[in-house]
Amino acid sequence: MTTIPAFVPPQRTLMGPGPSDVAPSVLKAMSAPLLGHLDPVFVKMMDEIKAMLRQVFITKNEMTFPVSGTGSAGMEFCCANLIEPGDEVIIGVNGVFGTRMCDVAERCGAKVIKVEAPWGQIIEPKQVAEALRHHRPKFVAIVHAETSTGALTPVEEISKMAHDRGSLMLLDTVTSLGGCPVRLDDWGIDAVYSGTQKCLSCPPGLSPVSLSPRALEVATKRKTKVQSWYLDVNLLASYWGEQRVYHHTAPISMNYALHEALRLVLEEGLENRWLRHERNHLGLKAGLKELGLGIASQEGHQLWQLNAVTVPEGADEAGVRKQLLTDFSIEIGAGLGPMKGKIWRIGLMGATSTPENVKKVLGALKTCLNK
Amino acid sequence: MTTIPAFVPPQRTLMGPGPSDVAPSVLKAMSAPLLGHLDPVFVKMMDEIKAMLRQVFITKNEMTFPVSGTGSAGMEFCCANLIEPGDEVIIGVNGVFGTRMCDVAERCGAKVIKVEAPWGQIIEPKQVAEALRHHRPKFVAIVHAETSTGALTPVEEISKMAHDRGSLMLLDTVTSLGGCPVRLDDWGIDAVYSGTQKCLSCPPGLSPVSLSPRALEVATKRKTKVQSWYLDVNLLASYWGEQRVYHHTAPISMNYALHEALRLVLEEGLENRWLRHERNHLGLKAGLKELGLGIASQEGHQLWQLNAVTVPEGADEAGVRKQLLTDFSIEIGAGLGPMKGKIWRIGLMGATSTPENVKKVLGALKTCLNK
Repeated sequence: MTTIPAFVPPQRTLMGPGPSDVAPSVLKAMSAPLLGHLDPVFVKMMDEIKAMLRQVFITKNEMTFPVSGTGSAGMEFCCANLIEPGDEVIIGVNGVFGTRMCDVAERCGAKVIKVEAPWGQIIEPKQVAEALRHHRPKFVAIVHAETSTGALTPVEEISKMAHDRGSLMLLDTVTSLGGCPVRLDDWGIDAVYSGTQKCLSCPPGLSPVSLSPRALEVATKRKTKVQSWYLDVNLLASYWGEQRVYHHTAPISMNYALHEALRLVLEEGLENRWLRHERNHLGLKAGLKELGLGIASQEGHQLWQLNAVTVPEGADEAGVRKQLLTDFSIEIGAGLGPMKGKIWRIGLMGATSTPENVKKVLGALKTCLNK
Repeated sequence: MTTIPAFVPPQRTLMGPGPSDVAPSVLKAMSAPLLGHLDPVFVKMMDEIKAMLRQVFITKNEMTFPVSGTGSAGMEFCCANLIEPGDEVIIGVNGVFGTRMCDVAERCGAKVIKVEAPWGQIIEPKQVAEALRHHRPKFVAIVHAETSTGALTPVEEISKMAHDRGSLMLLDTVTSLGGCPVRLDDWGIDAVYSGTQKCLSCPPGLSPVSLSPRALEVATKRKTKVQSWYLDVNLLASYWGEQRVYHHTAPISMNYALHEALRLVLEEGLENRWLRHERNHLGLKAGLKELGLGIASQEGHQLWQLNAVTVPEGADEAGVRKQLLTDFSIEIGAGLGPMKGKIWRIGLMGATSTPENVKKVLGALKTCLNK
């Protein structure tokens, strides 16, 4: 048999759409020896993760825990548990992730009503209001921070409208959580999922989710079985709840990492962390302006953690990204869908969001663009 | 906000049904800095993982890669991709995991024909032959190594019968892979899933899967969409294949761990590794006999990696497990379902399978049982 040498990754500065840089103590946490998934010591740690996630989501929801998959598994968790075949749902579509959610929801048997906005723009409350005049959906779903476009859609007003119509409110916070305000209970969010590898600065592999008591009731009182066994909250609740019934083997080391990453978030403090993300975004934006570069997403609604930079006329979009990676070991992201070739996506997420990194990427960009 | 102290797990000897002990170099691999999931260096490592998985599964199947979830996600991957609503499938049920597969398959819309054997016994070829006389199923599925009972069902003959009837052969190798012979191509297995945390001695979080060209054709030519977006092989193939189209963010660190774990398996050599598992099983069995203890599963078909030990009359089943954990820091597993309270499950999987651990658990059991 051929022997492949051990893998030694180079040291990158991760300034793309995620994963972001991970703090040394989080990396170290993963190298701790394994415990069994029913070990009382591990079970206590699970409770601490749940408690910390509630603090980070700013919610009292008992049903708050990490799904054993990446952010997209969290999206599927919410859809699969809440949708029964034939249900109508309203989904805001202004980028890759709203588009993806329509696909996921349809595979769960939903009749999807799309509320669309051009990529880079936000979903306006009045658009949702109009859709709600004609429909009474199971839920209204919004992608809070569209990672593909860099736009942040305000959701408080939309959430209120959904509730007034008797619908649940579902929110994708994959890129927003830990990088800008996310207030589940204040905003009346019923179902939410996130990812670990963005502003929580934990490696990818888990998806923190939370269901309000109202959403949980919908999931537990449904007439049909949840189509996914792996993601069925009725089964997962027995493992992550008091009973500790074996469901699947939890990804032990990933949970170690999440525990440490959440600890760092709370140690810094949510408000401080949001401010840091805002400050470094503003620093980047100012520096980009000096280079003659602008941000493509809607003014007033630009994400702090993910900057969609307009590729200037005549620049070699892919060439610049390649040069950043090979000459500076900096990863940035490409545009997707209609924005392919038109934007670079520069992430300032979690541990990546520092003044040093802002300076580093601006300097490197200057070189690559011969400015 | 409350501050929770950093988590420091105790050092256990993991002799339950998984996770097993993990080699230091695998733990260390996870603490390497992150790469982006589209980084050329990471992509090359993905190719090495695929190549090594093919060697471990002993297959030429191009479609061989780790699903981003635990073993149960792999089970759902196989069912969701192969089953279309209304399809008949035959599933062997002789423990927890066959039972689970029926549930998963039904949620995918299958009409399940169960072929049942008492827990601890194997599924006999003649039982499958009888079921095949009356049905022409999409697939016949067998749990190779039933982790809940310690029985190893031979599958070569069953696989041939399935093919003769025009059916696919599906195999659960969660506990068998890396601990005893698994020969996909020789046995004609069309769809297979495994877990990382058993005899591969990698932390839980990924599920290696493989589809034969025939199974892949079924998945790609199906009339209905795969109900799970997250597990749809038609989408995953674009990421794990040549095109490298973004699907979901791969769990980077878990893949580092799997790369190193597979390297260790191939460095030892599959045959040597199987022999080691057999030798330590025989050592444990002999030692158990001296203590007056026997193995509950069918003679001649007992797993080397998971030993279902009959709890002797009068012994405190749960008390012994608790004492092993608290006094000796050894984890063993409890029985499940009809075997609850009747067996202990002692795992000798991967890195855990050593003569030292056999000695250690026998000595500790002797103390706990006052022998």
